[in-house]
Amino acid sequence: MKLSKIADFLGLKISNDIEIETLLTLKEATPNSLSFFHTAKYLDDLKSTKAGAVILQEEYVKYLPDDVIALITNEPYKMMAKATSLFAYEPSVIEDEPILQKGAKVAKSANFGQNVKIGKNSTVMSGCYLGDNVEIGEECIIYPNVTIYHNCKIGNNCIIHSGTVIGSDGFGFVSKDNSNEKFYQIGNVVIEDSVEIGSNCTIDRATLGKTIIKSNAKLDNLIQIGHNCEIGQYSIIVSQVGLSGSTKLGVGVIMGGQSATAGHLEIGDRAMVAARGGVTKSLEGNRVYGGFPAVDIKLWRKTQAAIMRLVKKK
Amino acid sequence: MKLSKIADFLGLKISNDIEIETLLTLKEATPNSLSFFHTAKYLDDLKSTKAGAVILQEEYVKYLPDDVIALITNEPYKMMAKATSLFAYEPSVIEDEPILQKGAKVAKSANFGQNVKIGKNSTVMSGCYLGDNVEIGEECIIYPNVTIYHNCKIGNNCIIHSGTVIGSDGFGFVSKDNSNEKFYQIGNVVIEDSVEIGSNCTIDRATLGKTIIKSNAKLDNLIQIGHNCEIGQYSIIVSQVGLSGSTKLGVGVIMGGQSATAGHLEIGDRAMVAARGGVTKSLEGNRVYGGFPAVDIKLWRKTQAAIMRLVKKK
Amino acid sequence: MKLSKIADFLGLKISNDIEIETLLTLKEATPNSLSFFHTAKYLDDLKSTKAGAVILQEEYVKYLPDDVIALITNEPYKMMAKATSLFAYEPSVIEDEPILQKGAKVAKSANFGQNVKIGKNSTVMSGCYLGDNVEIGEECIIYPNVTIYHNCKIGNNCIIHSGTVIGSDGFGFVSKDNSNEKFYQIGNVVIEDSVEIGSNCTIDRATLGKTIIKSNAKLDNLIQIGHNCEIGQYSIIVSQVGLSGSTKLGVGVIMGGQSATAGHLEIGDRAMVAARGGVTKSLEGNRVYGGFPAVDIKLWRKTQAAIMRLVKKK
Repeated sequence: MKLSKIADFLGLKISNDIEIETLLTLKEATPNSLSFFHTAKYLDDLKSTKAGAVILQEEYVKYLPDDVIALITNEPYKMMAKATSLFAYEPSVIEDEPILQKGAKVAKSANFGQNVKIGKNSTVMSGCYLGDNVEIGEECIIYPNVTIYHNCKIGNNCIIHSGTVIGSDGFGFVSKDNSNEKFYQIGNVVIEDSVEIGSNCTIDRATLGKTIIKSNAKLDNLIQIGHNCEIGQYSIIVSQVGLSGSTKLGVGVIMGGQSATAGHLEIGDRAMVAARGGVTKSLEGNRVYGGFPAVDIKLWRKTQAAIMRLVKKK
Repeated sequence: MKLSKIADFLGLKISNDIEIETLLTLKEATPNSLSFFHTAKYLDDLKSTKAGAVILQEEYVKYLPDDVIALITNEPYKMMAKATSLFAYEPSVIEDEPILQKGAKVAKSANFGQNVKIGKNSTVMSGCYLGDNVEIGEECIIYPNVTIYHNCKIGNNCIIHSGTVIGSDGFGFVSKDNSNEKFYQIGNVVIEDSVEIGSNCTIDRATLGKTIIKSNAKLDNLIQIGHNCEIGQYSIIVSQVGLSGSTKLGVGVIMGGQSATAGHLEIGDRAMVAARGGVTKSLEGNRVYGGFPAVDIKLWRKTQAAIMRLVKKK
Repeated sequence: MKLSKIADFLGLKISNDIEIETLLTLKEATPNSLSFFHTAKYLDDLKSTKAGAVILQEEYVKYLPDDVIALITNEPYKMMAKATSLFAYEPSVIEDEPILQKGAKVAKSANFGQNVKIGKNSTVMSGCYLGDNVEIGEECIIYPNVTIYHNCKIGNNCIIHSGTVIGSDGFGFVSKDNSNEKFYQIGNVVIEDSVEIGSNCTIDRATLGKTIIKSNAKLDNLIQIGHNCEIGQYSIIVSQVGLSGSTKLGVGVIMGGQSATAGHLEIGDRAMVAARGGVTKSLEGNRVYGGFPAVDIKLWRKTQAAIMRLVKKK
């Protein structure tokens, strides 16, 4: 799509026209993508972005690398949300035959969009739906009634249990003047090799870019993974955990049952969050945390003991 | 159904016979409905009910408006539960063709009960099931593997993501003498315009009457909405929230991730409940709450600080 | 399968060969089963096991009953995990016709593995998948898009709501040297009579043996029941509860909304855990508990009051 078409749609001016293939964050952006800058927190990303064009406020134009085209507005977030509507997925009811590699088996009642690829010796059981351009690697088992939305990619040796939904829209709205405008979710989900995901989980697609679950991560049931999360290799996520958007877990992180994170934070390698822990800020690796807000688990246990002493004195 | 048939089934006497079309609460009741009164909390509703007949204890008969027929029993709740069995939905395996308005598209593998209507330009994707008499408005997207039970209504411009279940039974049992008798759930779910619901949510049908999600409300994933809840316009409900039966949210309420409410309470317009907040009583609007039991968030933060001071003194 | 074949696969020696039909815990084991001993906690079970053979460390061989064959290793848990791979379910895409008793009805779009039996007057609605050897009792309603994995058994008069998954794998991995090896889940789920299960629940199959939900238990929506749990008769489990593996609930236990348990513990008959209660150790029956870690609810309320006093003094 021509940048000029997007600019017209938004009512913004541009100094030069280029071809835009997709929308991406400043950090992930490529020369054929449009990005946006809406909070000073990402100023370093702005200064080094490889984007072809950026939607931003006038005062920040000076930080743009050379040759990056500026789309100036007072409301960059709202404008980017509007721009996403041009790239939104058009839901399709076409059911097509998948492309099967040797040894791949699909149940008769499984349904496929267009251009779906199933790798060697993989099995897709009854009632599954795999959307347009989904790719499944080799030696996978997709249990019955799993839904995988368009453009998502699954690696080799993965197991996905029934009822799990991969690639549904991240929760993104622009709330303004008592209205909730949709920020269309145009990214996808990438699941690497040897990942197992339990039943009735929800793994949201990225707003822009990708939500990624790295190799050997194991997820239990009823888990929520928000848009743009990154789950590190060998991580263990127990049932009913909820990770808000853009949470980044390191290698070998363990999230106990019903624990959760606020968004846009990082948990370091081999950190463990005890059951029910509520993580509100980034945490260092190689330590154990508990409580809400989550703190070092020894400290949390001390607080519990102190509370009990308050009562027992009486 | 004749009231006399119901009375016979319950072993209760009536002074007059009328036609009963449905069962409703005292407040919602119409002249052709049967209602019940089982707790003094609803005495005002009893005094002003428009019901044709009411099941109640003898001592409250004096509060009944003129012409309302009394069915007298010592166990009105249990008797009403028994009466619901006469109105219970008979599950059907009939799969029929839906009635499509112009531009409506349904996937070949989507399944429909009888008398299902799909509005203009709406899309119903693979593997969905829409039960008898379901109505979908215009310009909706129903993603794959959604289930909508009989008699539920969806407005215009709604998006419902995969795995979500709308209209399953509310959780209602009469526990007595070590048994759990089913209170059949004979209401429905009504979803107004421009509502988006994430994946793997559960929206229970009303016990009597309707569960309602008002226009422009946005729900994330894995959310539980109990029977007879009312979700106000422009409300935002984040992932893994649980609303117990008959919770009423005002306009623009925000419920943070994993927050929850006890049942039969109201949260005022534009109130915000922080993540993990547990609401145990009605809350005023235009304020922010947190903690469990939920209190003003500033107070909750003070309690957290005070707990930390207990520990750090040592 | 010959024990010698298993021993060869594991690289372990045996003194005698027998036929092994399945793998079971020491307590449930039968003469044609292989078991394992990996923690001193189960020494009594070891001394009285009826297993045909046991994988264990050398120092514990002396506690084995006569005639039980020992498979000696320093890593019994890891070896047992490896042995489970020999008994793992081979996922199948075969869709067959179920065996229907008189009055049983199945929707055309429901899918069945091989050798599925549907009892008298039971109904299986659209889009359900019932795996190989599943048995459904009489007078059941299985609502649309339910998934029941192979070998699971449902009693009479049961109701299972949409999106619920019964029999998916328990969450079992052997974490060692930065890898997560799968402990294959070769048990099943048994649901007794008159059980109702809400929508989008997940009931995991047992690792070895069975996960069991006893008669008249009622489960709300979005509930996680871990592998090898035992839910007592007449229990009530409210929405979003999570029970970790091997939790045992007595008769008439009530678990409030979003409450949870750590694994391998027991809750006594008629105990009640209030909403959000987090049970970390076994609890006596006939009492009410609350808080996290869960304590007597009166004590929990006192702690809440004490915390508030801390703040109000200032």
